[in-house]
Amino acid sequence: MAQNLSGDPLPSWNEGTNKQTIINFVESIIDPENPNYVAPFLRIATFDNDGTLWAEKPMYFQAAFALSRIRELAPQFPEWKEKQPFKAVLENDQKYLANITVNELLEIAMMTHAGTSQKEFEQEAKEFLNTAKHPRFNQLYKQVIYQPMLELLIYLQNNQFKTYICSGGGLDFIRLFSEEAYNIEPENVIGSNILKKYQIVSNYSQFIRQPQLIEPINDKAGKPVNIERFIGKKPILAVGNSDGDIEMMQYTVIDHQPSLALLLHHDDEIREYRYTKGTEKALELAKQYRWSVISMKQDFKQVFSFTP
Amino acid sequence: MAQNLSGDPLPSWNEGTNKQTIINFVESIIDPENPNYVAPFLRIATFDNDGTLWAEKPMYFQAAFALSRIRELAPQFPEWKEKQPFKAVLENDQKYLANITVNELLEIAMMTHAGTSQKEFEQEAKEFLNTAKHPRFNQLYKQVIYQPMLELLIYLQNNQFKTYICSGGGLDFIRLFSEEAYNIEPENVIGSNILKKYQIVSNYSQFIRQPQLIEPINDKAGKPVNIERFIGKKPILAVGNSDGDIEMMQYTVIDHQPSLALLLHHDDEIREYRYTKGTEKALELAKQYRWSVISMKQDFKQVFSFTP
Repeated sequence: MAQNLSGDPLPSWNEGTNKQTIINFVESIIDPENPNYVAPFLRIATFDNDGTLWAEKPMYFQAAFALSRIRELAPQFPEWKEKQPFKAVLENDQKYLANITVNELLEIAMMTHAGTSQKEFEQEAKEFLNTAKHPRFNQLYKQVIYQPMLELLIYLQNNQFKTYICSGGGLDFIRLFSEEAYNIEPENVIGSNILKKYQIVSNYSQFIRQPQLIEPINDKAGKPVNIERFIGKKPILAVGNSDGDIEMMQYTVIDHQPSLALLLHHDDEIREYRYTKGTEKALELAKQYRWSVISMKQDFKQVFSFTP
Repeated sequence: MAQNLSGDPLPSWNEGTNKQTIINFVESIIDPENPNYVAPFLRIATFDNDGTLWAEKPMYFQAAFALSRIRELAPQFPEWKEKQPFKAVLENDQKYLANITVNELLEIAMMTHAGTSQKEFEQEAKEFLNTAKHPRFNQLYKQVIYQPMLELLIYLQNNQFKTYICSGGGLDFIRLFSEEAYNIEPENVIGSNILKKYQIVSNYSQFIRQPQLIEPINDKAGKPVNIERFIGKKPILAVGNSDGDIEMMQYTVIDHQPSLALLLHHDDEIREYRYTKGTEKALELAKQYRWSVISMKQDFKQVFSFTP
């Protein structure tokens, strides 16, 4: 993730208004002579994960992880045959799974790991992260990340931003790859979360995963609530791609200057996917508020590191 | 909070085993040649607040804050006249208040600010912090902090530790003074917490405080759970003073090397207070585990900045 500091900080971005907006923003807030200067301790940037930093189609990767686990546990839960979203998983109902909601995903995550220790969960999830491949790109999922977004993260980090993930997905799952993939440490990951119980067993400390979600789920209005809870500062930059990111982007820019909100629009069916489902409201609001809509097709010179 | 880096990093500590243990620990973990070397990103230290960084007698300062608020609101809640801990507050029952529990304190904090915006809460709490004085020392409470502990914090910060508050008290209350008092930023404060609701009113974003505590309360076994939730790393140093800190200290040192746990013992009735109530179990366990018991009487050369 090295970067030539003296050259173009965003080489995988095409020249244009959006790239220039980002660079102008960063250059103005780091310049002590500029009226928009922001001190380093207030340089907070929050990034959604699924669909913003890595691909979320054909399904959330964490849903794919749950699949294998549901199949493993199905014999113990015969009622799953008739109950969604478990039914869809067991029947491999691709249409249902493509549109699985964050709440369903979190229910699966809770049910399939309740009562296991944090260590067991981590071992399983790591194994999955180190072996499961994206069905279309045939790469480990943690490599299916958007090269321009990675450059943006590194550009911000090099300019003393604290960069955070703020994802609807599970905190513990994301922490397992965020450092390797994004150079983002565990304490800078905000995600949906379950309650854990601390205990000592044979002179080892452990956490047992409880079947109870912590409110709020880190989606929609839950994002600003958790940003306030975990950081206690307003971001000056927020990056998202869907309706689940609206409140985070709104919170970042409303009544708050200088600030910038970026909405990644998936409009490139050749190199990635084209869809607006689940982002209709965000695209509409982007016009009303001053959000920059990043077009994958227009603004990304290169989408992934593994494609030319 | 300047410090002479070339000299003694802990000038308000008396020479002795405890001071030497701390300095040896820090010097070993920052030395790349030492087998106990710890990389900067793993240099996590967690400090309890009440009774560890500042005085908790004759009562928790946050309880004192709640007092004024309860009296203000009492006409609207006639049932408080018969209900503890509200009754004790309204009757100024010093004996009851001296032993108020963390749970009671949190119930007060919830009840007396439910439905108010985060901004209103902050204004009120700031006003209190800027005016209310400690009844014995006649100083603003945020000045009744232990000078040796402040030096320890700065010493660690200067050696690339990330220093966290991990308090049973309210997250939002502590954040209002942690930066000024301890050089600890809002994102490094872990405390008990209530649910908030995000909303937009007349083009301003705001958070409304809900009468619902987030589990777990940040006390006892809740401390390691929240450390894991907020940081995702084990501390290598934990500092506490009461039974509420046992699990945090245990989590820090059990099955984890190098690590250090410090338990501050209040045994100085001349310069501060002498008490063991609420710390009996911790003092007992300190012998069993390898925790250093800091004696205020023996180890602190100077207790507060305002006393000679």
